[in-house]
Amino acid sequence: MIHPQQPSGMPTQKYVPFQEQIRVELPDRTWPDQVMTKAPRWCAVDLRDGNQALIDPMDAERKMRMFKLLVKMGYKEIEVGFPSASQTDFDFCRELIEGGHIPDDVTIQVLTQCRDHLIERTFDAIRGSKTAIVHFYNSTSVLQRRVVFGMSEEGIIDIALQGARLCRKLEETVPETDVYYEYSPESYTGTELEFAVRICNEVIAVIDPTPDHKIIINLPATVEMATPNVYADSIEWMVRHLDRRESVVVSLHPHNDRGEGVAAAELGYLAGADRIEGCLFGNGERTGNVCLVTLGMNLFSQGIDPQIDFSDMADVRRTVEYCTQLPVHERHPWGGDLVYTAFSGSHQDAIKKGFEDMERRTAAAGTDINHIDWGVPYLPIDPHDIGRSYEAVVRVNSQSGKGGVSYLLKAEHGLDLPRRLQVEFSHVVQRRTDAEGGELSASEIWQMFADEYLHAEQADQRWGRFAPVRSTLIGADDGMDHIESVITDHGKQVEISGTGNGPIAAFIAALEPLGVDVRVLDYHEHALSAGGDARAAAYVECAVGERVLWGVGLHESIVKASLRAIMSAVNRAERDAVVPA
Amino acid sequence: MIHPQQPSGMPTQKYVPFQEQIRVELPDRTWPDQVMTKAPRWCAVDLRDGNQALIDPMDAERKMRMFKLLVKMGYKEIEVGFPSASQTDFDFCRELIEGGHIPDDVTIQVLTQCRDHLIERTFDAIRGSKTAIVHFYNSTSVLQRRVVFGMSEEGIIDIALQGARLCRKLEETVPETDVYYEYSPESYTGTELEFAVRICNEVIAVIDPTPDHKIIINLPATVEMATPNVYADSIEWMVRHLDRRESVVVSLHPHNDRGEGVAAAELGYLAGADRIEGCLFGNGERTGNVCLVTLGMNLFSQGIDPQIDFSDMADVRRTVEYCTQLPVHERHPWGGDLVYTAFSGSHQDAIKKGFEDMERRTAAAGTDINHIDWGVPYLPIDPHDIGRSYEAVVRVNSQSGKGGVSYLLKAEHGLDLPRRLQVEFSHVVQRRTDAEGGELSASEIWQMFADEYLHAEQADQRWGRFAPVRSTLIGADDGMDHIESVITDHGKQVEISGTGNGPIAAFIAALEPLGVDVRVLDYHEHALSAGGDARAAAYVECAVGERVLWGVGLHESIVKASLRAIMSAVNRAERDAVVPA
Repeated sequence: MIHPQQPSGMPTQKYVPFQEQIRVELPDRTWPDQVMTKAPRWCAVDLRDGNQALIDPMDAERKMRMFKLLVKMGYKEIEVGFPSASQTDFDFCRELIEGGHIPDDVTIQVLTQCRDHLIERTFDAIRGSKTAIVHFYNSTSVLQRRVVFGMSEEGIIDIALQGARLCRKLEETVPETDVYYEYSPESYTGTELEFAVRICNEVIAVIDPTPDHKIIINLPATVEMATPNVYADSIEWMVRHLDRRESVVVSLHPHNDRGEGVAAAELGYLAGADRIEGCLFGNGERTGNVCLVTLGMNLFSQGIDPQIDFSDMADVRRTVEYCTQLPVHERHPWGGDLVYTAFSGSHQDAIKKGFEDMERRTAAAGTDINHIDWGVPYLPIDPHDIGRSYEAVVRVNSQSGKGGVSYLLKAEHGLDLPRRLQVEFSHVVQRRTDAEGGELSASEIWQMFADEYLHAEQADQRWGRFAPVRSTLIGADDGMDHIESVITDHGKQVEISGTGNGPIAAFIAALEPLGVDVRVLDYHEHALSAGGDARAAAYVECAVGERVLWGVGLHESIVKASLRAIMSAVNRAERDAVVPA
Repeated sequence: MIHPQQPSGMPTQKYVPFQEQIRVELPDRTWPDQVMTKAPRWCAVDLRDGNQALIDPMDAERKMRMFKLLVKMGYKEIEVGFPSASQTDFDFCRELIEGGHIPDDVTIQVLTQCRDHLIERTFDAIRGSKTAIVHFYNSTSVLQRRVVFGMSEEGIIDIALQGARLCRKLEETVPETDVYYEYSPESYTGTELEFAVRICNEVIAVIDPTPDHKIIINLPATVEMATPNVYADSIEWMVRHLDRRESVVVSLHPHNDRGEGVAAAELGYLAGADRIEGCLFGNGERTGNVCLVTLGMNLFSQGIDPQIDFSDMADVRRTVEYCTQLPVHERHPWGGDLVYTAFSGSHQDAIKKGFEDMERRTAAAGTDINHIDWGVPYLPIDPHDIGRSYEAVVRVNSQSGKGGVSYLLKAEHGLDLPRRLQVEFSHVVQRRTDAEGGELSASEIWQMFADEYLHAEQADQRWGRFAPVRSTLIGADDGMDHIESVITDHGKQVEISGTGNGPIAAFIAALEPLGVDVRVLDYHEHALSAGGDARAAAYVECAVGERVLWGVGLHESIVKASLRAIMSAVNRAERDAVVPA
């Protein structure tokens, strides 16, 4: 027999099920019969909720990078900070306005608690902006009313209404700004629906919105407390009971404590909401805010334009990782390193047949791949649409039971290959094993790696157009780097020089007159060991002409390791370009 | 005005919405009115789907570690491999059986395609096991039927039925094994429901299950293609249409392409399924299988016993990271480094008041924290239940606009602190700034770090019970390490020695006679630089007596850096123990 599971011994008795805390009943719900047909209004809160939840918050330069990325992607509503609570946020808000960084079609949003001096300071922060959304909130949950505020429902409502009234009054202090309002009953998911709708309706009455100048009512899952269908039920209930619906934008703000933030956003949107707040790659307090990349790409994969441009996913990801100093996980939907990779032989076979079928249908229709219905097993979208490619990983049977190729390079040679390089190198190994057959020893794998990527010290083992001879780097006073290099080009020594905002950029500039078109997409480096043999490894992912591929360099100097990595990538690209397909 | 979003220019026209591919209609659905009251049957597929999707699959040792972890946590059904497709999987299956590693109340499950020679090999693999689940599958989706198999519905059904018949026949070859069956119409989410139920019902008829000896019908979201309510509708439809329901276990197997695997599992379970397959921390092909940790902990947080023990989350996570060589993301629900961390001042204040209220209620009820209802804002569970603790991060205003404390330690000193150490050190900084006030310079922060964690070379700057003098490490033939150290204990030189399966274990053994109780929970190391100053940094998270805290060591030798890190943690623990609270 199959034996039943046993009690875990964990203290389950201390937790009260959600349905015993808050009643959400909507037997005549209609949202499960809806489907999405268009994108919601998006609001990116990366610079607020996202930034708030970093051990090291973004400095001014990173904030500007993030803001510009969001603008470039197409977000029109961007929460830029909590200026009354943080001088950094205040200064950034002023810099955006005074520096003229806000495009005419983008509206900034600022968060504030419902306290007089904070609201006043908030209006100081937005002065001079063409439009702005003032987002005021107070906490409304049963738990917070009792434990944090010790207040009746009336007291909590008063906080919100006083805030709303002061906002309306302060509008006259910013006559050049078209001020919109957003109100959040914070900790909404822990609030009785009757109370939530009451406080929202009273706020609506004070703000007095019109169909042409709506108020945003934002219903945050500050803590995700139940399954996403319950959130959707609550949203549909609110949508039915909110006053002046034609003058209200219903907004969602899911967090991800139960790992269901994406589902909560989508089902809540089906339930009648108009707008969703979130962060790129799900940054935010604790488990994060809902991921805007996942939501946007989910729409895209259903043939619905997200109205946000994800076509350069690598750039989006790189910028987010730079600004947040947090990694995007290998399995993160749509953007992770491994999500367009197939490991299983049967998956790979099906994908191959899918691509062949796409080719046949494209030819038969006399069109291109973007104008026939996408249909490749295991690939929900065409990775090329976001600048990625499909990768099949074939494993090498050499290491039976001893760990695989990447493991071995790390364990025996200290090389910690970036994921996408691991995938790329697996192809190199596979090509050679297909050609040569048989099992591979650890040293054969290392030889393959060295031969494919590394500069050979002995000239007779070298291949490729370029090889290093010597380089001198001069850091200029203005922060630019100038490099003077001697390299061999097809075996002949040449002197090159270039300038850029770093040694790699300078070296790439120096290569340009030789007809080399190379652009760095990703860069990793690490020290090789802590012992006497202190070398650095540099890994660069480059676009060389049309091709994207990796180069690797090892050297005592991290600068020289980087230059070798660039030459490695260029050599590999040029070698493959002359071999007939 | 707030400007509308604009078209992205992405090729949305190539994607067909799910509802135009597969019809799932269930206007009289009942699942949205259900709530969960008990744990489903779990099946852990970490050794199959999870292992399959690794660049370097687990070797035999890692597989065994994973198997033993799953058993220890309480999983009773464990898919251990695809023995007919992989010699490594076959060997592991045999080792489990012949080595007697399968507890009496645990059932192994093995996957196979519906091909004669593979099924035969599968029965060879399970021979001698007390029970086993033979899991056979074939692909049924519209897309795969057309593109991969070029077959009619009848052809696809024949594949499944031939497999089922052969299975029944081969049972006689394993008379000592109680064989159960699981059938998966693979790519179920891309299959018309009418066809899915037809093939399942024909398989059920061949297997001929009974209420005492059920068949498992597994309905995989091989690719997540729609919102999770659609998956739930489809499951409820299947549950209504499957024959011999009393003899069928309906199983779910969600993947996470749209980031909604957890929601799909939970809503599908509400829709009438009995069982869920997934992987710890969501390992698996592409975006992964549904995360068993999240599902189990979601139940726990609702007062429902998951029947799986998550009380030592650090151990679960460490083992998974070791076996998969993939990290658990900082924001992963329930297990990530940052999910019990509060950054916002208002959150911290609310949490503090929540804990005070818990104390009051505990005292009033004359009981302990495990016997009153949990209620602390922003903390959905008591982190202690899984061996974690709540952390409040207070930022230091010193670096205004120049990056924070961790950034600085990395940029200026090359130290890449693990996340939880970053959080811990933020407290150290905070305590000192609270005491001393004012802004902090970069060098003051470094001084704080060095004084708190590092061994001071100058004796007059030292504090703490232990300091290193010299150590000799002897690696024994049997793989054990023996260490002989001279250290100072309260300033007096003592000689200690110990043996363990590594230098740290040996050193800990050597400290034991001095009355030091220390256990290593986490360990990180990296080389400090690639230049001439080639030192290593070691970071250890230790349990010293009741306390969990970090130690740090720097040294040219990675071994000596580790020993210093241990002494650092012990010194810190002993210092705090003698200071009155």
